[in-house]
Amino acid sequence: MLSLHEAIRPTTFITSSKLRDHLGLDITIATETFQHTGSFKFRAAYNLALNVPNDEILTASSGNFGQALAYACKLLGKKCTVVMPATSAKVKVEAVRGFGSTVDLVDTTKVGRLERVAELAEQMPNAYFASAYDDEFVIAGNSTLGDELAGLGFDAIVIPVGGGGLISGVVTALCRQGDTAEVIGAEPLLGNDAARSLKAGEILSNDGEPQTIADGARTISLGELNWPIIRDGVRDIIEVSDDRIAAAVKLYFELANLKTEPTGALSLGAVLEHPDRFVGKKVCLVVSGGNVDAAVYRELI
Amino acid sequence: MLSLHEAIRPTTFITSSKLRDHLGLDITIATETFQHTGSFKFRAAYNLALNVPNDEILTASSGNFGQALAYACKLLGKKCTVVMPATSAKVKVEAVRGFGSTVDLVDTTKVGRLERVAELAEQMPNAYFASAYDDEFVIAGNSTLGDELAGLGFDAIVIPVGGGGLISGVVTALCRQGDTAEVIGAEPLLGNDAARSLKAGEILSNDGEPQTIADGARTISLGELNWPIIRDGVRDIIEVSDDRIAAAVKLYFELANLKTEPTGALSLGAVLEHPDRFVGKKVCLVVSGGNVDAAVYRELI
Repeated sequence: MLSLHEAIRPTTFITSSKLRDHLGLDITIATETFQHTGSFKFRAAYNLALNVPNDEILTASSGNFGQALAYACKLLGKKCTVVMPATSAKVKVEAVRGFGSTVDLVDTTKVGRLERVAELAEQMPNAYFASAYDDEFVIAGNSTLGDELAGLGFDAIVIPVGGGGLISGVVTALCRQGDTAEVIGAEPLLGNDAARSLKAGEILSNDGEPQTIADGARTISLGELNWPIIRDGVRDIIEVSDDRIAAAVKLYFELANLKTEPTGALSLGAVLEHPDRFVGKKVCLVVSGGNVDAAVYRELI
Repeated sequence: MLSLHEAIRPTTFITSSKLRDHLGLDITIATETFQHTGSFKFRAAYNLALNVPNDEILTASSGNFGQALAYACKLLGKKCTVVMPATSAKVKVEAVRGFGSTVDLVDTTKVGRLERVAELAEQMPNAYFASAYDDEFVIAGNSTLGDELAGLGFDAIVIPVGGGGLISGVVTALCRQGDTAEVIGAEPLLGNDAARSLKAGEILSNDGEPQTIADGARTISLGELNWPIIRDGVRDIIEVSDDRIAAAVKLYFELANLKTEPTGALSLGAVLEHPDRFVGKKVCLVVSGGNVDAAVYRELI
């Protein structure tokens, strides 16, 4: 059984002279697109599956966390059930099944996802219910990325924000490593609860699931465990329009040979929103993941 | 002025569990898509521009070598002229110009590229004419990739073949490092001169520029300096159909989050042609570059 540090892949650092020249900024990319299962979520999922005493784990995820948890459970010999909307892309359902997990497809027009999770939790009394972001093990798993970024001399680190699991993990690690880089969130404008929360000083929610192309950030609100870490450790959260997210995906393709999913491109999108904010700084853009359907990607590039 | 080893970026190693499981093979990807200017050619170009005494360099290239040489000359403060067909993609012409080089557009329906180069060479008596593959400095520059692959325990290393500059560089390095991995070439079936040459024991040519989608391998024949190294050091050259090249680009996109150009995907294409050849071996697939037009890529994925 591999320890967390043995199991995860180090992040991949990329610098592109073309991207630097295009933006006139000192940009380094830290991409998690080559992490196991194609996103940073494996860090969280493996840490969780490794440390909870339960042999069964239950989660609700149509995206990267479900896949990451399924793979982590496969490696660790644990049972895993992933609740997914019946409308999920077939390729995502097959990926989770391919790792040996059970997929529970729910018709979300008839029953809510969390309602279905509650039903299943009753039927599986020994299962651990894993949130994709609001969990100590998740934050600690994601903090390994912060450990890798600490001490490299970055003035600013820009990180995609959905439920806040990644950014709170990175803040935690930078703090414990004594790295004073400013941490900046990048959130879709269409689901700007975290930006509004940071301004208001309290957790605020979106009215419903935001319909942004950044499907990994379609969250209603920050997690309760993530919130205080973000409130105290994040300098600023930049709201990124869907147009700028799309432009960022295209720029990565053209200038850096990097395939990213829309959510992963949020950090570059934030730079495109406010380039002046980053002049003269050594900037790290975290790309959270690269899993995007070919049909969507074709439109974006 | 940076030394060769300071200037180049180390290759990026990627392993994808999905790709490994899909193929049932122990595959490691060594990708040059994040090398400066997006392909391995920068290794060759920088070494050449660094070591020739001339202050002016002349080359003919519509592709990666032109861009790499232009960037290397920019870094080293040398003058560079790149002869390109008038039909070259605008984005490629702009890339070379963006690095400060002169682009000489030639109407190839009226005058041959090499004819135009000869004309220019007369006008520029102090310029060094750089072949993209048939040059000692090019081979030595590319050998740095072989140095990075040596000693990692690979049983087989599969490498795209056009003019033979990359594979002869890698063979040279493995030999001097005492690494006995078998080196296998991957060449487009539509331009299979190298495979035929290896069988015949002498350099053979294609009848004309092969119309394969692997545009980096549209060469008439191997270079004269490359040939003896390939003849003595390459075990086998696998001919890859354009359909398999396309399938390889798509598999990299879907299973490894890796954007490659068709030429870069040749090595995976070779595995798709003959998967049995690689069973039970620790295989390294070299991806030579990632520069591909969005319109072409859209069709491929």
